[in-house]
Amino acid sequence: MSRRIFKQDEFRETGFGNRVIEINQRLMNKDGYSNVKRSGIPFYSVSNIYHRLITMPWWKFLLVILCSYTFVSFLFAMLYYFGDVNNVNGMVYSNSFEKFMEVFFFSSQSLTTVGYGRLNPVGLFNSTVAAIESFVGLLSFAMGTGLLYGRFSRPVANVLYSEIALIAPYQGITAFMIRVANKSKSELIDPEANLLLAYVLMVDGKKERKFANLKLELTKVTLLTLSWTIVHPIDEESPIYGWTNEDFRKNDVEFMILIRAYEETFAQTVHSRSSYRFNEMVIGAKFASIVKPGEKGSVTVELNRIHEYEEAPLFESIN
Amino acid sequence: MSRRIFKQDEFRETGFGNRVIEINQRLMNKDGYSNVKRSGIPFYSVSNIYHRLITMPWWKFLLVILCSYTFVSFLFAMLYYFGDVNNVNGMVYSNSFEKFMEVFFFSSQSLTTVGYGRLNPVGLFNSTVAAIESFVGLLSFAMGTGLLYGRFSRPVANVLYSEIALIAPYQGITAFMIRVANKSKSELIDPEANLLLAYVLMVDGKKERKFANLKLELTKVTLLTLSWTIVHPIDEESPIYGWTNEDFRKNDVEFMILIRAYEETFAQTVHSRSSYRFNEMVIGAKFASIVKPGEKGSVTVELNRIHEYEEAPLFESIN
Amino acid sequence: MSRRIFKQDEFRETGFGNRVIEINQRLMNKDGYSNVKRSGIPFYSVSNIYHRLITMPWWKFLLVILCSYTFVSFLFAMLYYFGDVNNVNGMVYSNSFEKFMEVFFFSSQSLTTVGYGRLNPVGLFNSTVAAIESFVGLLSFAMGTGLLYGRFSRPVANVLYSEIALIAPYQGITAFMIRVANKSKSELIDPEANLLLAYVLMVDGKKERKFANLKLELTKVTLLTLSWTIVHPIDEESPIYGWTNEDFRKNDVEFMILIRAYEETFAQTVHSRSSYRFNEMVIGAKFASIVKPGEKGSVTVELNRIHEYEEAPLFESIN
Amino acid sequence: MSRRIFKQDEFRETGFGNRVIEINQRLMNKDGYSNVKRSGIPFYSVSNIYHRLITMPWWKFLLVILCSYTFVSFLFAMLYYFGDVNNVNGMVYSNSFEKFMEVFFFSSQSLTTVGYGRLNPVGLFNSTVAAIESFVGLLSFAMGTGLLYGRFSRPVANVLYSEIALIAPYQGITAFMIRVANKSKSELIDPEANLLLAYVLMVDGKKERKFANLKLELTKVTLLTLSWTIVHPIDEESPIYGWTNEDFRKNDVEFMILIRAYEETFAQTVHSRSSYRFNEMVIGAKFASIVKPGEKGSVTVELNRIHEYEEAPLFESIN
Repeated sequence: MSRRIFKQDEFRETGFGNRVIEINQRLMNKDGYSNVKRSGIPFYSVSNIYHRLITMPWWKFLLVILCSYTFVSFLFAMLYYFGDVNNVNGMVYSNSFEKFMEVFFFSSQSLTTVGYGRLNPVGLFNSTVAAIESFVGLLSFAMGTGLLYGRFSRPVANVLYSEIALIAPYQGITAFMIRVANKSKSELIDPEANLLLAYVLMVDGKKERKFANLKLELTKVTLLTLSWTIVHPIDEESPIYGWTNEDFRKNDVEFMILIRAYEETFAQTVHSRSSYRFNEMVIGAKFASIVKPGEKGSVTVELNRIHEYEEAPLFESIN
Repeated sequence: MSRRIFKQDEFRETGFGNRVIEINQRLMNKDGYSNVKRSGIPFYSVSNIYHRLITMPWWKFLLVILCSYTFVSFLFAMLYYFGDVNNVNGMVYSNSFEKFMEVFFFSSQSLTTVGYGRLNPVGLFNSTVAAIESFVGLLSFAMGTGLLYGRFSRPVANVLYSEIALIAPYQGITAFMIRVANKSKSELIDPEANLLLAYVLMVDGKKERKFANLKLELTKVTLLTLSWTIVHPIDEESPIYGWTNEDFRKNDVEFMILIRAYEETFAQTVHSRSSYRFNEMVIGAKFASIVKPGEKGSVTVELNRIHEYEEAPLFESIN
Repeated sequence: MSRRIFKQDEFRETGFGNRVIEINQRLMNKDGYSNVKRSGIPFYSVSNIYHRLITMPWWKFLLVILCSYTFVSFLFAMLYYFGDVNNVNGMVYSNSFEKFMEVFFFSSQSLTTVGYGRLNPVGLFNSTVAAIESFVGLLSFAMGTGLLYGRFSRPVANVLYSEIALIAPYQGITAFMIRVANKSKSELIDPEANLLLAYVLMVDGKKERKFANLKLELTKVTLLTLSWTIVHPIDEESPIYGWTNEDFRKNDVEFMILIRAYEETFAQTVHSRSSYRFNEMVIGAKFASIVKPGEKGSVTVELNRIHEYEEAPLFESIN
Repeated sequence: MSRRIFKQDEFRETGFGNRVIEINQRLMNKDGYSNVKRSGIPFYSVSNIYHRLITMPWWKFLLVILCSYTFVSFLFAMLYYFGDVNNVNGMVYSNSFEKFMEVFFFSSQSLTTVGYGRLNPVGLFNSTVAAIESFVGLLSFAMGTGLLYGRFSRPVANVLYSEIALIAPYQGITAFMIRVANKSKSELIDPEANLLLAYVLMVDGKKERKFANLKLELTKVTLLTLSWTIVHPIDEESPIYGWTNEDFRKNDVEFMILIRAYEETFAQTVHSRSSYRFNEMVIGAKFASIVKPGEKGSVTVELNRIHEYEEAPLFESIN
């Protein structure tokens, strides 16, 4: 038996499957997360809860902790109220709703450890509950501190992608182009790009998903200070060489862009991803310049215009 | 004297020894920790205590800090009680057990810095002890915050391994297969696998442990979105080429799998390991598909079925 | 059509543009930040605010949080004062300014959760506001903790650069030299240098910016314990070979130095950058030795003298 | 002029100088820090203070913060005492020492935000000072939290080095050997070793320091579970080939060992270093085995015996 050569199925390399389930399905969402659901695993695990609390929007996060604060205060208030309400020292009210309010605020004062002291616990039951409540308060607060810090200090590649990809004229041929920029104030160093193409082919009368790595004119730059136009020249070696407008649509193309860079504020390597489908492509156009002179000899990049393009006739008609 | 070529003993490369102490001994536990004990080093060191507090289960961790809180409150309560109990201002009880309870709760109120104030220290001794106690409280709380954050933010490769490894038919030959998936919500980027084999051979009538790196069909994928079947094709170059069922058992094989990936939430590289022994292998089977269409054109991976396999006759009998 | 070779425009590789907007413009500031402004993106984003709070000078940072503290205390004080001032229990003053002061201090005591308790909230409105205020206080404090830790623990390459670059005699030819040292107590391991040259050329009667990587005598050292003189030997392959004093000035040279190292205290990779223009160069000089014997056989590096140089005639006149 | 070959001075690559200042001087201390002092830079910088607070021993660290706490409490106590002592509400003592003690404890209660409330500020001056003090307290406490977390979570390569290096018999020749082990509970993954030799030679009647990289039998292992004997075989290519006992002494050798590994608990790369001089070498010995069977088929490594060696005659006499 001779030495065997392993044909590496491209689909394996990407981590996406090669099965085509529905033609209009996106593999990777615009925000870079994959369109794959995972079932059968418990989602109440600590790391998943942490992940969710760290990645949810700020308004949602603040709402979650405000509700938790109110809820825990309420729970302990119930304990005081139904346990030994007359031993909550210092109350000035007498009817039962007002009493409950007093007890609720006493509870919140224990939880935050502000402990004004007008209201204070007397007796074994109340004192024990209060001791536990301040302890719970401190722990929750410690968790909150960690979560807030985790949210703040999570290094993110704030990469801004052009909303559309272009098929543009390029050095006598055509090229596939995407434009990216750094939208955060923190420097992105040594950014590196990787462009994957997913498309659907008829194989033995069955639709099958194919994958290909697209060669870039430049895979790495030193700093992402201006915008960076990522260019895949469509030469004879490109899998999309000679494709017409119709081919792109029919083959349900999806261009996935992966960017890796060193983020300076957090001194860590960050990743960013996005994807483009046929309806996000413009054929026969080039990106408009967004660099202009600023004050005192500086250069200004107008990031809100990153999506702007101008018509540009292709060297080779692809329609 | 001619140029010398150093024969690299494989055992050295793995960090495990080549001595066979007992045939039924596992080198690497299923959770990836080695089966080696280290004696003669002090285990009360700060980094070891931290390591233990960070890696113990949550219920144990919460128990440890709850007990510490009670214990420290108690210690300081003893100081107040036997020091200058009558100068704890504001007590409403008079018998000694009740007095101690009051002092204990005063102590816990100082430790958490809730300080209601009904109970408060008077005099040099009590005030000093209380000043120290609140300081200790703050420090402990700072430690707790750090520990909680450390537990939350420790990047872990939540890799799910199939419980069994398979000897499966593969492109006309057979292959050794393991299936892995990402069980956390956080993306694992560029996962890379490394498969080591440990087995026992008779060398000069003495059992000796041997090690080998097993070549993989694919050592790296772009994203771990679906499941990934790690495949070692058993071709002529494989050290387990031609082995029979009995050989695997007799040679006390242990397949060790090491996975490295970039974890997106924490932006750090993480490692995960596991191992398979003969009794965790199934000969003549292949993994069942666990990918199925989800709602609205999405794909669902059923992770609870990652261990499922179906019988599959091998091309070459190995029995 | 033959295989196409992509001419990689050097300007792309650096991330700076090749357009020359003004001759006296610096591409990279001395502190390593680029001279490029980005407009059109919202700067109130959380990550930008965090970035700014983390990188601003300490006095500014402390001022910001002190003002925030006062401002928030004041805001809540307004609520108490105009809401239900008579239900702030325990006030000892009666005229309205004094009342407001009492309420303001009550507010700050709630915000810091010190909660002495002489002043304490009574009634639904005041108690609710106070409950919210202590909650806000805890959250702000959690953020402050995170920010302080973020500021402290941000790994920075404390690289000290010589103020001037030299054109010095070197092994029979001349060389471009910069001297760097580690100005922090933390060890810098495996520092690696990268030297870029930007210059302006007349291309078709139009000024254009060109870029080149300059080859170094040594790109990496093991430890940055003493000072390190980074040397670019100007041999026949150097783009500045044969340049005269006047050429450097006329072509508006800018030497950009990028250094990457592993910082030991934070166990992370850090980057540092700086740049040199013509007016920061000295032609015909060499760096003075700054290493001298210390006490008890140790070696001392005098970092304040890192900029010192001595005249040294060049082997080849470049004037 | 022909293409020039740059002779790379070895001394540059190490970051140590080649000047021999005193024969008995050690370049690298046993703990891996270099013997170089840096003068002329301000050492009150924030990053240096942080570095020092993070790396000092625990007892010293706790002492520093305890003293700071007392000192700051005292400072604010002075303000209250000499500012408006009669407006510190709730004092029970009347003579001036006792009054100061009360004020001091009131100060510490404000700083820790325990705020019992028996003692509480009245009036503009005292209330303002108290508001500032609690704010300072919160900030200091935030810093303390950060420092404690920084100390705990600093990834350290807890590498245990044998106290002595050996010249041992090895595969028919001799070899230089050091033994290392992991002394922490956290796994060290992919440890990599680098061995440098520094020695002194007479060059033109002047002592000069030379450096060399020593080739290792194995530069990397997969896991550091057992101990690892780092071996430099002294073959014909070794710079110490044929050296006698006297040569090692006379040339003032210093073997510097650098180890890099991935630390699992903190998921970061860590470095460790140590060095060996002539008086820490034993000629003609080999390391004693420290691996022995443990309970239930496990393996135990006796780390306290890592320094143990046995006499072993060399194949070639080097005396």
